[in-house]
Amino acid sequence: MEPYRLSATKALHLIQKNELTVEAYARSLLARIESREPTVQAWAYLYPEAVLEQARRLDKVPTEQRGPLHGIAIGVKDVIYTKDMPTEHNSPLYKDSHVPVDAASIAILRAAGALILGKTQTTEFASTTIGPKTINPHSLPPLPVRTPGGSSSGSGAAVADYHVPFALGTQTGGSIIRPGSFNGIYGFKPTWGAVSREGQKVYSLTLDTLGWYARSVEDLRMLAGVLGIKDDDVPRKLKGLKGAKFGLVKGPVWRLAGPGTINALEKAKALLQAHGATVHDVELPEEFSNMPDWHAKIMASDGRTTFLPEYLIDKTRLQTFLANQVENVNGWTHKQELAAFDGVASLRPVIDSIVDGFDALITPSVVDEAPLGNGSTGSAAFNGMWTALHTPVVNIPGFKGENGMPVGVSLVAARYKDEHLLEVAEVVGGVFEKEGGWKSAL
Amino acid sequence: MEPYRLSATKALHLIQKNELTVEAYARSLLARIESREPTVQAWAYLYPEAVLEQARRLDKVPTEQRGPLHGIAIGVKDVIYTKDMPTEHNSPLYKDSHVPVDAASIAILRAAGALILGKTQTTEFASTTIGPKTINPHSLPPLPVRTPGGSSSGSGAAVADYHVPFALGTQTGGSIIRPGSFNGIYGFKPTWGAVSREGQKVYSLTLDTLGWYARSVEDLRMLAGVLGIKDDDVPRKLKGLKGAKFGLVKGPVWRLAGPGTINALEKAKALLQAHGATVHDVELPEEFSNMPDWHAKIMASDGRTTFLPEYLIDKTRLQTFLANQVENVNGWTHKQELAAFDGVASLRPVIDSIVDGFDALITPSVVDEAPLGNGSTGSAAFNGMWTALHTPVVNIPGFKGENGMPVGVSLVAARYKDEHLLEVAEVVGGVFEKEGGWKSAL
Repeated sequence: MEPYRLSATKALHLIQKNELTVEAYARSLLARIESREPTVQAWAYLYPEAVLEQARRLDKVPTEQRGPLHGIAIGVKDVIYTKDMPTEHNSPLYKDSHVPVDAASIAILRAAGALILGKTQTTEFASTTIGPKTINPHSLPPLPVRTPGGSSSGSGAAVADYHVPFALGTQTGGSIIRPGSFNGIYGFKPTWGAVSREGQKVYSLTLDTLGWYARSVEDLRMLAGVLGIKDDDVPRKLKGLKGAKFGLVKGPVWRLAGPGTINALEKAKALLQAHGATVHDVELPEEFSNMPDWHAKIMASDGRTTFLPEYLIDKTRLQTFLANQVENVNGWTHKQELAAFDGVASLRPVIDSIVDGFDALITPSVVDEAPLGNGSTGSAAFNGMWTALHTPVVNIPGFKGENGMPVGVSLVAARYKDEHLLEVAEVVGGVFEKEGGWKSAL
Repeated sequence: MEPYRLSATKALHLIQKNELTVEAYARSLLARIESREPTVQAWAYLYPEAVLEQARRLDKVPTEQRGPLHGIAIGVKDVIYTKDMPTEHNSPLYKDSHVPVDAASIAILRAAGALILGKTQTTEFASTTIGPKTINPHSLPPLPVRTPGGSSSGSGAAVADYHVPFALGTQTGGSIIRPGSFNGIYGFKPTWGAVSREGQKVYSLTLDTLGWYARSVEDLRMLAGVLGIKDDDVPRKLKGLKGAKFGLVKGPVWRLAGPGTINALEKAKALLQAHGATVHDVELPEEFSNMPDWHAKIMASDGRTTFLPEYLIDKTRLQTFLANQVENVNGWTHKQELAAFDGVASLRPVIDSIVDGFDALITPSVVDEAPLGNGSTGSAAFNGMWTALHTPVVNIPGFKGENGMPVGVSLVAARYKDEHLLEVAEVVGGVFEKEGGWKSAL
């Protein structure tokens, strides 16, 4: 098998046994990227010579000094500082901007020996739905072009298209889970606060969460360990789904669900049951119907504070959507913002206690399969609630929409049950990938 | 009057009328610093030639292009990025580190025409109580050396000692209010979230707040306006204290109050009453007794995430206190952290509704006057609660301790009543400064 096709777990194994050099691994990934990138356009910055130099340096590290991610390649969303690469935020205000410092996440990954491959495409400041040029790798010309989702557009596409086994994303609305679903891969948004976001562009301190993509749960878990994710209790190993208990949450925006998601959720329920799990319909308490409005208010009021510097420096080069937040065109008051902020806070312990009655909740990841075109990255309607509630979420691929594009579903656990959630996701993912009806053709 | 003695408001006025050049103003401040800095040691980085160059550039800006802070000098705590100066966080890990980007606050101030003077001393990462070398300017040798407080040690001392009219600080526990009290100046911690903290070292996203120092409330307000502070309603102008209503909160750690603070609070109450205000003793609901414990748990659990990169890079060069947080030596569980996080969140609307019954709450700023020595920056015991509750707080100087050192008291308003709080602070400050018994000899 070509090294670029390997899972991170497998590549690490081969590198550790000296059966694969980091340089050979990097060359394979770069060749894959070279052949695919002209169409997919997942990368904002990639400088192959520097990658190979980094790889050769890693190959020279004595075995006993190698970290737990030695040589494993990672794509980094271009809103996260990397000391050896520019960070442009897909903003004309930051064209060619190079801040030579590592974000907290990158410092951790580098200390673990990761090969920081390059920067992936993002929507402007990870905060709009205006797509970058990236195209969904599952629908390349001559098929009609579709969005890879956003804002972590390039990270989702790059992992799905075998450019890298890992990529970092960020989520304020649905920017990790949506590209996970649209690209048919696993996307993990850990508990808010579990991983430092220092050095990643701020949109909303209350909502922004760092997360990552992989093509297997085993790989997601490898990165979780390195980044310091740790439950209070060692999670119970699941042998299978027999006796497992899921809560099915359609949530306050279920009316928006398209046929792809309606079908995915039905099929998911049937598969879980067929494998011996019970699935209970969960009606959330009435207050949860405020969540879409509260999420929007928190985002807008935080945006008002966050983008003031860019607005003052040159508002003509800031997306209208963001300039409008600074100008507070909605006329929302601080009183309304606080009601949203406090309202969401009051529901966090409520959702935790609801989730704790189940192995996990199952809920939509997206409205439907990836829409046509790459001008808009689609809707985050189903994700904002979980982002604001700070719960960990995994997108599980496996289902397909009316046009054969991937559709995922989300598994949700209580806060700081991240390792537990990954355990459940591994078993559920095995079933959905095998029997859900969608398989990657890449 | 020497320009260095001017308030920011007065200096701005003279510069706007072309009666003072920015260069002449800068030269006066630099001369003051040159004569005082060998003893006070407030600065971590100050390069006079670059300051004068900046000043001359500002003098060349055509009048119609000048910003609302044109030429006004500001000291910046050395945990906040400034594109033209190093940012060392008082950490050996960041010795000579220069990240050439402006923090959000600096970008706003620079766009307003401020003269970014230099970087002020801080405790390591603004997160320990181990003092930098700064000495409290009110007790210079041959008097016994005293701490200026921390973590915004240099900012507090520099403003008190007339090196600058403004300095930025940050507060996670009591790092703005405590140096305000110890140095006999005004310190303002606005509502959490009102000003972007992007580009300032993170300790706790839930607690960290940017704030600033000045020698008058009028000056505090000038910076508030530039930094985007805006209440929902235009605050009511207070003519005096007649009919004003204050709530006196001793709070859950009152037992720690020393004679300086006991006296200051008594005197404050008497002065308010003598000027026609009513002062009501406020007993907070029982849940507030958890606040010290909750604040400590939030800080420690956030520190565990925040300092992981530095710990992995070289834990031997990280303060033991912080390495212990990463290692979670207290053995606190995520469950305990979440109880703290959710508990504090539940009390935010409660304190808002309590405060809204008064013009402001009055509460201790510190345990007592500045302790002897500069090894420890003192206790934040009285501040952490308000930091976690996200309310705006102003330290009002005017009282003195048993050794003649300044002691302040805090005024507190509900969240996003920042402009209102500054209105009240101006009237109260006028009385306390005049009749409280302490006057700066500097």
